[in-house]
Amino acid sequence: MPQGQPLTVPDDGLTTRQRRNRPLLMVHTGDGKGKSTAAFGLALRAWNQGWSIGVFQFVKSAKWRIGEQTVLERLGRLHEETGEGGSVDWQKMGSGWSWTRKQGEAEDHETAAREGWREIESRLVRQTHDLLILDEFTYVMKWGWVDVDEVVATLADRPGHQHVVITGRHADPRLIEAADLVTEMIKAKHPMDVGQKGQKGIEW
Amino acid sequence: MPQGQPLTVPDDGLTTRQRRNRPLLMVHTGDGKGKSTAAFGLALRAWNQGWSIGVFQFVKSAKWRIGEQTVLERLGRLHEETGEGGSVDWQKMGSGWSWTRKQGEAEDHETAAREGWREIESRLVRQTHDLLILDEFTYVMKWGWVDVDEVVATLADRPGHQHVVITGRHADPRLIEAADLVTEMIKAKHPMDVGQKGQKGIEW
Repeated sequence: MPQGQPLTVPDDGLTTRQRRNRPLLMVHTGDGKGKSTAAFGLALRAWNQGWSIGVFQFVKSAKWRIGEQTVLERLGRLHEETGEGGSVDWQKMGSGWSWTRKQGEAEDHETAAREGWREIESRLVRQTHDLLILDEFTYVMKWGWVDVDEVVATLADRPGHQHVVITGRHADPRLIEAADLVTEMIKAKHPMDVGQKGQKGIEW
Repeated sequence: MPQGQPLTVPDDGLTTRQRRNRPLLMVHTGDGKGKSTAAFGLALRAWNQGWSIGVFQFVKSAKWRIGEQTVLERLGRLHEETGEGGSVDWQKMGSGWSWTRKQGEAEDHETAAREGWREIESRLVRQTHDLLILDEFTYVMKWGWVDVDEVVATLADRPGHQHVVITGRHADPRLIEAADLVTEMIKAKHPMDVGQKGQKGIEW
């Protein structure tokens, strides 16, 4: 976390408090590990603030359950039971979005991805969540399954105070341009380069 | 997460299973965000596996409580109450390590950092944890408060199956060399560059 004072003070007519509380569009990209993991780490902070969290997994691990899903959904139940923290809605394209009620049925990925984005658009308008994590959404953009300019415009025009994190490699330059915060995770060294496979607790 | 097969199969006499389950030394470094956040995200997976988790915060946010601490300690209590997940021991140098019982007293940071490392060494020998997060420990190494060669040797020789994550900028080349997995977080764009300060739920 950067410490201390900002490097410049922008001439945007906002007070420090207004600027501080500006909702952020964040992008975690690059070939290294930690893009999704850091996004789910942010969800911990959000839960602790009592925020409503929406997670939308577009590609990776979508048919199976990663540890973060189990734990964040457990925290969501804790919220329902005790009022602690915030709510958690975890949606996966691979097993069928819950709202499409097509779990288990074969569905073409492009259609499913478009349906996912349409739902997110709708939730942004309704301001359903305080934090939205669009996991692996860069691929959906890269493959042209959604219109990048339209996505960027929708994100830029979102009302209220909704933080958005988008993860995945090959983030489109227009998304980078629109984002407030971009972190590139670089693989400096990885055990799979020397013949090691993934393992539980570390990769999922 | 990288998918598919390893690029090479090493001639190390290990089976795939043995190689898969090799404990990892991981380093999150670089100037970007997400180093600690990704480490705490890994802790979610570890908790879900029922692992014992030890977090040692050496510098950052050490006097105050970040959201991840509150949530992970809550998960630790859930483990005690219901047996779900794993245990969590969260230690902070800034407010005094719990075992030194010097909370609130002024203590010189170098001495405190050395005491932290000594405790970690002892826990590694006793195999207290399945996952140890040494948050911001790179600075302690960089400032010469601990002997880097000794730290690296202790980590390399740790018994059993203990995963270790070390976070912070300016990781020593000897630590990089010893690590199994190194991710560099690069700041591609940050709101503080354009005059925005940190905000709750995002920075803490």
